[in-house]
Amino acid sequence: MDLFDKTVKSIEPVKESWYDSAQKHLDNLTKPLGSLGKLEEFARRLVAITENARPILDKKVIFTFAGDHGIVEEGVSAYPKEVTPQMVFNIVAGGAAINVLSRHAGSEVVVVDIGVDHDFGKVEGLVDRKVMRGTRNFAKGPAMTRDEAIKSIECGIELAQNYAQNGYRIMGTGEMGIGNTTPSSAIVAVLTGAPVAEVTGRGTGISDDALSRKARIIEEAIRLNNPDPKDAIDVLSKVGGTEIGGIAGLVLGAASRKIPVVVDGFISTAGALIAYAIEPKVKDYMFAAHHSVERGHRIALEAMGLAPILDLGMRLGEGTGAALAMLLIEGGLKIYREMATFEEAGVTDEIVN
Amino acid sequence: MDLFDKTVKSIEPVKESWYDSAQKHLDNLTKPLGSLGKLEEFARRLVAITENARPILDKKVIFTFAGDHGIVEEGVSAYPKEVTPQMVFNIVAGGAAINVLSRHAGSEVVVVDIGVDHDFGKVEGLVDRKVMRGTRNFAKGPAMTRDEAIKSIECGIELAQNYAQNGYRIMGTGEMGIGNTTPSSAIVAVLTGAPVAEVTGRGTGISDDALSRKARIIEEAIRLNNPDPKDAIDVLSKVGGTEIGGIAGLVLGAASRKIPVVVDGFISTAGALIAYAIEPKVKDYMFAAHHSVERGHRIALEAMGLAPILDLGMRLGEGTGAALAMLLIEGGLKIYREMATFEEAGVTDEIVN
Repeated sequence: MDLFDKTVKSIEPVKESWYDSAQKHLDNLTKPLGSLGKLEEFARRLVAITENARPILDKKVIFTFAGDHGIVEEGVSAYPKEVTPQMVFNIVAGGAAINVLSRHAGSEVVVVDIGVDHDFGKVEGLVDRKVMRGTRNFAKGPAMTRDEAIKSIECGIELAQNYAQNGYRIMGTGEMGIGNTTPSSAIVAVLTGAPVAEVTGRGTGISDDALSRKARIIEEAIRLNNPDPKDAIDVLSKVGGTEIGGIAGLVLGAASRKIPVVVDGFISTAGALIAYAIEPKVKDYMFAAHHSVERGHRIALEAMGLAPILDLGMRLGEGTGAALAMLLIEGGLKIYREMATFEEAGVTDEIVN
Repeated sequence: MDLFDKTVKSIEPVKESWYDSAQKHLDNLTKPLGSLGKLEEFARRLVAITENARPILDKKVIFTFAGDHGIVEEGVSAYPKEVTPQMVFNIVAGGAAINVLSRHAGSEVVVVDIGVDHDFGKVEGLVDRKVMRGTRNFAKGPAMTRDEAIKSIECGIELAQNYAQNGYRIMGTGEMGIGNTTPSSAIVAVLTGAPVAEVTGRGTGISDDALSRKARIIEEAIRLNNPDPKDAIDVLSKVGGTEIGGIAGLVLGAASRKIPVVVDGFISTAGALIAYAIEPKVKDYMFAAHHSVERGHRIALEAMGLAPILDLGMRLGEGTGAALAMLLIEGGLKIYREMATFEEAGVTDEIVN
């Protein structure tokens, strides 16, 4: 709890003046004013977040937090629970989508066992931070104790702070956990006040019947557990998951070290929403990677005032959207760092009409 | 004209069966069915376009066609005409946005003087294919003769076919030409039938007054020149531009060699629309890079049934959107080529709900 409290207290808002100085440089580059749209925004924000007039993104990392969910017993997922550890092995072996797209983006992937219901023993390349062997079925009672929820957040904080210490300049969130759209929908419903049906989707691809069952189960579970929307840790513990806590912690930890953090899809956004409910200043440090197909994602993003960078019809998770968004964010930074100014290039910048 | 006719006749539609075989492989990869959305579409299309079950994108190129426009006399652009050659030098020197983003995407940039109103002499790194020293002012008569229009298209065809011959696997379109949103709006209005006001925007950033003047000038010029919407070459010659012709040719040439072509923003899309009006089969080979801020872009894309990959509030041209889109298209291909299958990874693919 010390780490949690200290971290949250240390988060500062980004200073406006950095945006202005960055934009001034962007306006001297050989292009019409503002003509690179969001690429310019990315550059401005990187300057302001890092408080560095010449930021670099040489070391990048995406954390894929893996956890299991007791709620899977209720038939809320298209895939059986054993897929979580199977996919963990796949990521460790480099064969999953997140591996491919992270390589493409020049980012490392760190897979974290924060709550998988499987005894991995010692696996090379897997970070063991297991808080519990899967959450409890929150259709019957709280998913976690308050301590377990805080422990999962502190896991993310610690990773963010260690990697910041080791020179990583940008971080992405990701997750793997069969059933984890269910706690995510529950969190988004509780924290935004949106009706459960509007924030509950098909996840990996359940049928119509399973979808209406899923929404009903979430509604009943919220009634049963009665999480306090004013207390994000209460929400996380009662209807959340360990990997969602890990993501919330990563966002808090990155913000505390002035590191930009790219938030992946729906589940990651549920984690980000927990972090935002704890300390709204984290918003200044977040980039919303993409708009997922999963129903409810837009509502969650809008609750934080975030606009997604990409909209590619994706709904895979793992951090795949974050990897692609990093490529675009880095493109914006390269524009800022590498383009010639009007003066350098001898180009007229006088507007005539 | 021989090259033009031969090229257009040789364009074949993409064979459906390749999409199916590519999707079959995608469905064996360790992810929920269809969960990578457009990334999967990119992979499918690359397989089908190249008729290759294992395509690669090792050599990429973006062509930035540069040309000037007599219509600039009418005060339709925010910047003076001399910026076109100045920006050509900037691109040759590597300092423009297209250089930065092409490097980021691992693509070469080829700058083509297809119609700049400047005598460059011999410049290392500049491809000299000058059709004319700027088009004529189409507020007073046709911008080009029919022969000049065909010559500009054939320039693009030749470049596409030469680069295909030299092993380039994907091509992007781009342009530089002060005033060139004006002919682009005219082309889009004539070929789609949309009202001029709905397809005329601020270009590099003209004032409200200049914008209404621009739309009025385009309307009057269309009335004066009376281009035949059934004859795309007539449209290009009367109200178009050399770089727009070059882009149309690049699209035709790429399609004739079964090479995917990434179409940049509004001006490039006007060129693509010319190519599409000549031979609609080119659609199978095109990727729409992004949705530009420039008014009328969406109407032009919709006329061809193309959906843009990105929407980043950009309006710079040069090929900048194409460079970024190439990165995403390549991401889709890497997914297809590098991900593990369910069998390889020992992951259960049985759906339970």
